[in-house]
Amino acid sequence: MDREASTWFREPITDHLYQACRITGIAFSGQSEFQTIEVMDTLEFGRILVLDGKTQSAESDEFIYHEILVHPAMIIHPAPRRVFIAGGGEGATLREVLSHSTVEEAVMVDIDREVVEVSRRYLPSWHLGSFDDPRTTLLHQDAGAYLKDAEAPFDVIIIDLSDPVKGNPSALLYTREFYQLALERLTPQGVLAIQAECADYGRTQAFTAICNTLGQVFPQVYPYHLSVPSFSGDWGFALATLGPDPTLVSPKEVDQAISTRITRPLRAYDGVTHQGIFTFSRAVREVLEAETRVLTENDLLVVT
Amino acid sequence: MDREASTWFREPITDHLYQACRITGIAFSGQSEFQTIEVMDTLEFGRILVLDGKTQSAESDEFIYHEILVHPAMIIHPAPRRVFIAGGGEGATLREVLSHSTVEEAVMVDIDREVVEVSRRYLPSWHLGSFDDPRTTLLHQDAGAYLKDAEAPFDVIIIDLSDPVKGNPSALLYTREFYQLALERLTPQGVLAIQAECADYGRTQAFTAICNTLGQVFPQVYPYHLSVPSFSGDWGFALATLGPDPTLVSPKEVDQAISTRITRPLRAYDGVTHQGIFTFSRAVREVLEAETRVLTENDLLVVT
Amino acid sequence: MDREASTWFREPITDHLYQACRITGIAFSGQSEFQTIEVMDTLEFGRILVLDGKTQSAESDEFIYHEILVHPAMIIHPAPRRVFIAGGGEGATLREVLSHSTVEEAVMVDIDREVVEVSRRYLPSWHLGSFDDPRTTLLHQDAGAYLKDAEAPFDVIIIDLSDPVKGNPSALLYTREFYQLALERLTPQGVLAIQAECADYGRTQAFTAICNTLGQVFPQVYPYHLSVPSFSGDWGFALATLGPDPTLVSPKEVDQAISTRITRPLRAYDGVTHQGIFTFSRAVREVLEAETRVLTENDLLVVT
Amino acid sequence: MDREASTWFREPITDHLYQACRITGIAFSGQSEFQTIEVMDTLEFGRILVLDGKTQSAESDEFIYHEILVHPAMIIHPAPRRVFIAGGGEGATLREVLSHSTVEEAVMVDIDREVVEVSRRYLPSWHLGSFDDPRTTLLHQDAGAYLKDAEAPFDVIIIDLSDPVKGNPSALLYTREFYQLALERLTPQGVLAIQAECADYGRTQAFTAICNTLGQVFPQVYPYHLSVPSFSGDWGFALATLGPDPTLVSPKEVDQAISTRITRPLRAYDGVTHQGIFTFSRAVREVLEAETRVLTENDLLVVT
Repeated sequence: MDREASTWFREPITDHLYQACRITGIAFSGQSEFQTIEVMDTLEFGRILVLDGKTQSAESDEFIYHEILVHPAMIIHPAPRRVFIAGGGEGATLREVLSHSTVEEAVMVDIDREVVEVSRRYLPSWHLGSFDDPRTTLLHQDAGAYLKDAEAPFDVIIIDLSDPVKGNPSALLYTREFYQLALERLTPQGVLAIQAECADYGRTQAFTAICNTLGQVFPQVYPYHLSVPSFSGDWGFALATLGPDPTLVSPKEVDQAISTRITRPLRAYDGVTHQGIFTFSRAVREVLEAETRVLTENDLLVVT
Repeated sequence: MDREASTWFREPITDHLYQACRITGIAFSGQSEFQTIEVMDTLEFGRILVLDGKTQSAESDEFIYHEILVHPAMIIHPAPRRVFIAGGGEGATLREVLSHSTVEEAVMVDIDREVVEVSRRYLPSWHLGSFDDPRTTLLHQDAGAYLKDAEAPFDVIIIDLSDPVKGNPSALLYTREFYQLALERLTPQGVLAIQAECADYGRTQAFTAICNTLGQVFPQVYPYHLSVPSFSGDWGFALATLGPDPTLVSPKEVDQAISTRITRPLRAYDGVTHQGIFTFSRAVREVLEAETRVLTENDLLVVT
Repeated sequence: MDREASTWFREPITDHLYQACRITGIAFSGQSEFQTIEVMDTLEFGRILVLDGKTQSAESDEFIYHEILVHPAMIIHPAPRRVFIAGGGEGATLREVLSHSTVEEAVMVDIDREVVEVSRRYLPSWHLGSFDDPRTTLLHQDAGAYLKDAEAPFDVIIIDLSDPVKGNPSALLYTREFYQLALERLTPQGVLAIQAECADYGRTQAFTAICNTLGQVFPQVYPYHLSVPSFSGDWGFALATLGPDPTLVSPKEVDQAISTRITRPLRAYDGVTHQGIFTFSRAVREVLEAETRVLTENDLLVVT
Repeated sequence: MDREASTWFREPITDHLYQACRITGIAFSGQSEFQTIEVMDTLEFGRILVLDGKTQSAESDEFIYHEILVHPAMIIHPAPRRVFIAGGGEGATLREVLSHSTVEEAVMVDIDREVVEVSRRYLPSWHLGSFDDPRTTLLHQDAGAYLKDAEAPFDVIIIDLSDPVKGNPSALLYTREFYQLALERLTPQGVLAIQAECADYGRTQAFTAICNTLGQVFPQVYPYHLSVPSFSGDWGFALATLGPDPTLVSPKEVDQAISTRITRPLRAYDGVTHQGIFTFSRAVREVLEAETRVLTENDLLVVT
């Protein structure tokens, strides 16, 4: 057996499948009020943040995840000024949002103060100081409660929640009730973007349920996807909009918007990428269309 | 610990990463002249064929892999009559090729007779009797040696080889020398399709090297990709053509060709799928463009 | 990573420790009324029987386990004629009991008929036809219920039950109530032997609880142990007697009894072995002495 | 799958078997001139020291290993004054040696200075300051070279080397040549003790080869054993003596020697323990007797 094969982080993907990567260190390991928090150093993905046993993002490819989560929504909006982020503890979603020169205020609500503290200390290349940007308002409370009482509406809402494994409080925000709240707090041209779990054929149960639930609330929902290796496969996202249709924006228009509005260089997202991510294979399109489940506070999403 | 967690198949993805899936049975386990052969039943992917420790295809998603490997090449050719398959031991690539009503002859050369015998017996839903189709010529020899002596040229060549793990003879067919041979045996409108290993960002070394090597030989090379869950991620393919440009064929034209030429229902491939698979994210496009390695008989590809 | 590392059987030892061995085949896999049953072929231990995820015995060292479970009890009894076996599904405990020429009747009660059927078919070298010995009475019912109604007493009782993992019915027979029943069904010179779970320092919770519980019922209890590699460590047993003291029998006397009474060659047990197995290190003796837990039907034993 | 099952240390036991324990931290991970060095915190065994992927000792049971390695040799010697330790990097063998009030000088030669530095810092409960005892001479060089040039002989020599996995320099000290050197540096009543790898039936190849090799050099060799859970099984040791026979010392004599000579409380070793450890089951005795391999510099020991 391999001499180097000493220490491994093992992550369940489904009940019958797991992925394991070699680790060289455990930078932090603790338990917050809401979840277990671990920061590990891996040989495959660099440093990773793990909540309740699930990888949230990895040094090697968090740029893919965060750029693809944030920019399509921001780009198809004519000029996003106020942005709301639900979750997003690492601060990298905030980083991408703040890279848009149009943004005047970013409100980030992550219920778990400890995740943010750990990220601040151990994941500096994720947040790049975004928590301290003067445009940032950082709060630790239930995102639903915040939205309910929010006065001014938002141009863009980014839902960047941890995986709703059994017992994780994020499950309550993967519901029609929360999406309804979000809808009511969007400006007329508003766009919502959400990380929507695995999009791999055969493991799309959460993804299709989230998309279908969004469709109960929003007039237009556009599922999209891109492979995020540290999540062990193709990852699902969705845009839900009150107006703009992302598939009508040409690669050229995307590239132009990037160059005029975004103040830092991108590595994963551009016009061609935008064009590709909204297309699914026939096999996945069929399960997306066939989905009937609506997630509610009485029928919560749970992943392995 | 989980009571059900008894028996697992563990497959290395890289030196620092592996995937493991629960198995309920080992239908066959043996060693041929060329490689180890295992057929297992898994809870996640159904039955799988494993050569030298690597999953070759899985009951649950082989349709994705084989449809995407075969049909883009076949569809962009005006009327493929003679088709050559290098490898393809399960018989499913052959199955997809024979589903084209234009095909008059399919020559399949897989060096390992035992893989084909095992597939014939244990993977009936893969080959569906294709080995016995009157249009099939099945040979067990080196595909390079066969092509060198082949008299009549082929309209389409499909390279469906096992992963070139250390010691596996397939490595010799991931070379400029073999691609040159293939080029010389194509008809003027000929198209070559190849499975080209992992296309996930960070693990594209084999994929980009294969594409770059093809580009040394063929005037046009079109990398493409689709997620194949049992291969644990996004999977790379490439078309190398003497004429047709696959990205100029519209979804409608693809769907039309499917409905007139293909005699069995497809599940993964259609016009929209075709449109999506040739687009890569900026991150992967950059590594594809930066690749300079040329695989030759003196610099063979090896994967973990 | 190692090419051969394909398929593994993983067995929890504690909540924080597991052992995994490479398997080459799964001869049987099923679910009886009482437990999951698996028969696998491993490279390390040959064929193994697994109930509810725990190895019950292995081809490579079942001789150690079964000889050490059966012969000390039989040898220290002057002339065991009637023997009762609780559990013992593989038939190997029965095999060792029947190897004693003094035995006139062996009653084996294993609640799970399917374990016996599977053993009969897949573990022939374990039972060696013992189920069909004319001296054998084989019953499938609750061993406690049987003993309650048994008319004639037994000279030796062997308790060879599966590990009491959560939900396994064997837990009810690791109780003071069952030991009381056993005591009442022993002849005046009677001896009881029991497999008593792991005896490794730090993992002796079950072992010490079983020994202490026996001590609530029997006048004399003699814990003993021997390493059984397929059980991943030192394994605990105990003799509970109404008369004989096993530690007073000399190696010579044991060897003499073996040669006059036992009709098949032994491989693990002899006089010197007998002398060694009753001695524990100071560390284990201390936890044995400190144990106060009494297992009852209201406080059942559960192992991982 | 289990939420807690995040991070594991996996250790090969044989080519077909491994043990894995959950880790909560990696206190140190590095590569010295001679081997990889890791210090991890586990839930099962507390802190462990791992060299070249193999557990050297564990917080939870190092007392078993070190007491059993050191005290039998020391106790059967009438009055050990000068003691030599080959290896022993953690400092715990030294700790046990220095606990004997007869000891005037302890020379410890461990080739790897970095192991000692790491132990000094991360394993304080192992060495308990022994490196700084005025009776200690600590050297970092080849133990063979040291012994060759040593002027004064030793009463007791303890060989506490790391496992001779492929490439580890310790292999050269598991040879007849080194044992011959050791013999020549013993006083007339001298005793040598050695850790001798796994003593579990079926995995005794290294153990029996070491014992047989010692027997080529020493007039009397006494293999012994005790289960060390963190080593995943029964562990082998041996005494090689010029005079004293350890099996003739009664439990009472051992206890008396302990109480008069040893200045710290013991937890694993005492008279009863001494009596038990020299007895092996018939199965292991037979492989010990049948062994013919002699380890030499031309036929080195290698373990997985």
